[in-house]
Amino acid sequence: MSRSLRLATNLARHYPWVTTPFIVSAPMRVMSSPSLAVAVSNAGGLGFLGPGVKTQDIHKDLEEISTLLKTNTASANTNSESLPVGVGFQLWSDDVTVGIAAIERYKPCAAWLYAPHNTDTDYDHWARQIRRVSPHTHIWIQVGSLAEATALLSASEKPDVVVVQGAESGGHGRETDGLGLITLFPEVADAYADSGIPLFAAGGIADGRGAAAALCLGADGVVMGTRFLATPEARISRGYQNEIVRASDGAASTTRTFLYNQLRGTVGWPKNYSPRTIINQSYRDHQAGVPFEELKRLHDEALQAGDDGWGPEGRLATYAGASIGLIHGVKDADTIVREVREQVLEKFAPVGKSKL
Amino acid sequence: MSRSLRLATNLARHYPWVTTPFIVSAPMRVMSSPSLAVAVSNAGGLGFLGPGVKTQDIHKDLEEISTLLKTNTASANTNSESLPVGVGFQLWSDDVTVGIAAIERYKPCAAWLYAPHNTDTDYDHWARQIRRVSPHTHIWIQVGSLAEATALLSASEKPDVVVVQGAESGGHGRETDGLGLITLFPEVADAYADSGIPLFAAGGIADGRGAAAALCLGADGVVMGTRFLATPEARISRGYQNEIVRASDGAASTTRTFLYNQLRGTVGWPKNYSPRTIINQSYRDHQAGVPFEELKRLHDEALQAGDDGWGPEGRLATYAGASIGLIHGVKDADTIVREVREQVLEKFAPVGKSKL
Repeated sequence: MSRSLRLATNLARHYPWVTTPFIVSAPMRVMSSPSLAVAVSNAGGLGFLGPGVKTQDIHKDLEEISTLLKTNTASANTNSESLPVGVGFQLWSDDVTVGIAAIERYKPCAAWLYAPHNTDTDYDHWARQIRRVSPHTHIWIQVGSLAEATALLSASEKPDVVVVQGAESGGHGRETDGLGLITLFPEVADAYADSGIPLFAAGGIADGRGAAAALCLGADGVVMGTRFLATPEARISRGYQNEIVRASDGAASTTRTFLYNQLRGTVGWPKNYSPRTIINQSYRDHQAGVPFEELKRLHDEALQAGDDGWGPEGRLATYAGASIGLIHGVKDADTIVREVREQVLEKFAPVGKSKL
Repeated sequence: MSRSLRLATNLARHYPWVTTPFIVSAPMRVMSSPSLAVAVSNAGGLGFLGPGVKTQDIHKDLEEISTLLKTNTASANTNSESLPVGVGFQLWSDDVTVGIAAIERYKPCAAWLYAPHNTDTDYDHWARQIRRVSPHTHIWIQVGSLAEATALLSASEKPDVVVVQGAESGGHGRETDGLGLITLFPEVADAYADSGIPLFAAGGIADGRGAAAALCLGADGVVMGTRFLATPEARISRGYQNEIVRASDGAASTTRTFLYNQLRGTVGWPKNYSPRTIINQSYRDHQAGVPFEELKRLHDEALQAGDDGWGPEGRLATYAGASIGLIHGVKDADTIVREVREQVLEKFAPVGKSKL
């Protein structure tokens, strides 16, 4: 095995069912469903449940996960202390009391914290309460800049894992100070060299090439979000999913813009986050100077059209990463994890060894 | 050896002195000097001479390269048909007649073409003339988007090598439709899968981690620019070089802006190119609303200050890639090539094998 494929000792111990390379499905809001999280963990990765429309939804979702894990014969090999899936929270909008109660009850192996109103206090506040009710739950924190990453090194509640998200990511990432993984990741890795904290790479990874590249940059594991939107397990509208499969040329066909948040009436995201979306008619009309009220009217009409509201001529938010050009079909989450793993192992395989 | 490290057959034949992984120094205008190009090729990489202030300068520079190659005892092992260094041209500003005459006389192994006024005709025009006077000179073309890359597939003069430059790059890259290598590269690689044309990765690579990552993304070789600015061989002012070494946090401390071109009086760059630079006082004042005339006056004063014109409080253009946070000192070009090579080989080395 290549050195780049070795799992860090603390990861191998805490996630005993995970196979190298460490592949994670991101906690995408609503879309990262119980069945997606379970499928990824069952395939030897780590699946995260996404935040719900309301924090309270986590109870129903974690109950479903517990049931799926019990009935699934391929159920993940785990220690009995925690559920072999993680949960994600969007700190600015999630209710900490409700979230902590769910963690206390279901003991997920990891909690992924993101997008606080106050970086200095909110991570510590959540982490302290999580550790109090569930000492075995790892704290994962997602950052998108070197400054955010280094600030965590002096936090009173140190994260167990830091996820470094590059500018190619989908959904809400850094608005202005984001940068591609190829330079951001090694800079963070250098800052963390003596920390003992494993680093995961996210943003723009959709197959074994990106995953292997991230390992070379120094990642202990890789996170994919958009890739898992094109699974039957994702909790996503068909029209939206079709766009993930159809769109290509991530640079030309996606952009970061607040427009769709405004059209959807989403308010409250902290400063310096902006979502990447597939460009469609709403954005093109906005660029062409069509007034917001008109865009909003057309958007709300499109909402009524169901799956037809998405597409190149569609008007609905289609949050996605720049990796959409690498995604050409819907596949089971299990298949994706296994394929990416094989592609990564092949990258590091010696010449002359037979194909996996 | 790992599969990711195999050199493509046509590359191994054309550049017989090059050792895997294939490491290239970019043709940075003026700064990629004769001694830098020769040092990189002598270290088993491929060095490119940068475009000069005037195209005519290439004659003096290639003469110097010829002399250096003759007197250097470690002179690159090459076939006798061509010089084991490449030359770069900035098509919108370089004189094709002068450039072709130099290629005819010195027969560099490669000519790197970039930034034409007219993508549809200028590449073909240059490539045809180069091939007429020097059939063994490989045509390298640099692109920064999927659309540019796919357009080349139907060019009448096909490139021998395509360089895919990610948004993290320094100097003049894509203004608005650039994207990080982690997604851009594999999308281009898929489009080129049946082309037989080797692809090189550029932009944000400054050490063995980025280089190994690029190979995993499917690159046949890697190009570094900014990294080689921090060498004694680079034709660069000390104040500028000090900034490359000093600056960190590539996302926060660099940006793409036309401001410094305007301050320097550089006009004529084709549409959709914009340079990345280290942010200094000129840019901060510009953001704060200081009028251009005042910025220009202060800039021109700073020009008189020599090396003191650069620095965090300086005012002069400091074009550089986002990888500056990975560069911590000045090293010989030879040392850089050898270190990056060893770092890459180590990434692919099996566990248990002794360190290189």
